[in-house]
Amino acid sequence: MAIEITAFESSPDRGQGLARDMPVRWALEEVGQDYSVRLQSFAALKGADHRARQPFGQIPTLQDGDVALFESGAIVLHIGSTWPGLLPAGLPARARAIAWIFAAVSSVEPLIVERETAGYLERDQAWFDARNALLGDRIRRRLSDVSVHLGARDWLEDEFTAGDLMMVSVLRRLKNDSLLSEPLARYVARAEARPAFGRAFHAQKAVFLSSQSGRTLAATPS
Amino acid sequence: MAIEITAFESSPDRGQGLARDMPVRWALEEVGQDYSVRLQSFAALKGADHRARQPFGQIPTLQDGDVALFESGAIVLHIGSTWPGLLPAGLPARARAIAWIFAAVSSVEPLIVERETAGYLERDQAWFDARNALLGDRIRRRLSDVSVHLGARDWLEDEFTAGDLMMVSVLRRLKNDSLLSEPLARYVARAEARPAFGRAFHAQKAVFLSSQSGRTLAATPS
Repeated sequence: MAIEITAFESSPDRGQGLARDMPVRWALEEVGQDYSVRLQSFAALKGADHRARQPFGQIPTLQDGDVALFESGAIVLHIGSTWPGLLPAGLPARARAIAWIFAAVSSVEPLIVERETAGYLERDQAWFDARNALLGDRIRRRLSDVSVHLGARDWLEDEFTAGDLMMVSVLRRLKNDSLLSEPLARYVARAEARPAFGRAFHAQKAVFLSSQSGRTLAATPS
Repeated sequence: MAIEITAFESSPDRGQGLARDMPVRWALEEVGQDYSVRLQSFAALKGADHRARQPFGQIPTLQDGDVALFESGAIVLHIGSTWPGLLPAGLPARARAIAWIFAAVSSVEPLIVERETAGYLERDQAWFDARNALLGDRIRRRLSDVSVHLGARDWLEDEFTAGDLMMVSVLRRLKNDSLLSEPLARYVARAEARPAFGRAFHAQKAVFLSSQSGRTLAATPS
């Protein structure tokens, strides 16, 4: 069954792989599934066609046969539930991996995105500097909790799971930011060293390089 | 198998049912499972015992046999996956319901929580009023997307699912707030009219009333 995802036609992060198609590409690479990519312009994202797939006018979406999904967490969970490689077989460990997917997108990412959003919407406001310091403190405390849980282990639980994939995808937004402590930077680097990550990263970077060269890829086979 | 969840010993919302144990109680009521509640003081939440269950020192957690979970979205998904009543049987519809759980906790709730957090941490700051207006606009746009998707239907998809349960739990944070449009207020009211919601609401309210009377319930059978 053909899998199709959506991604930005022109990467706003210039190929750093911070857009939310990246965890979906990575998950598909981890489980060894080919996929095609429908590239969307920013204008098309807000159109009725795309909103029928994604109510908030965002990327990514996934079409896998008759399964039509949005929300990167839900898509990664679907991929992990459908093919082996991202979720442990036993229920207790599987449930923990899913808890970490939720922790990444609802307990860690919102704090990081709040600071990013302030950075581009509120940078000219009088309050920006004072507030940015507050946001940094909140992020630091939350990441410290993740780091304490991780301890001396390689991954959040006994093996690499979809929970690590999603947590690392979120933490990568802080690459080269002093908010990312050394232990968490090493955790991110361990995950980035996975061959599946590398394949996903290069696939999304190819889209950016292509958009720079003036051409647009209609679809990018993996 | 006995199910145990954690909740605040003393409800910070004075029994309005806005804490995150509420969707877990509601889900357990929808699927007809009894549960006990371990009530936690704010001090205990930050202790090592509780952090072993919940890395961020928050509620709720769930212990269901050898499944130990945190993150309300993950817990509701576990409940929906274990007992019938909250997730459709067919994969496409089931995947959509799960997408809405993620949408609630990662695309809608963070914007609402950001405004709440500003309300108690930044109210004395010079920037508060100007920023509060910006946050209101962001919430209004996001909720408009939910409302457009809902259209004339009763629920987000063809039937009530765990996705509605989680979305309504999030939207209830805006009760009596003009940001909640009429169609979404009616959607919330429809969900609140469900008997399972009523049972969960009264169970958490009993904890609050008990804490007010100077006693503390050690456990609240459902």
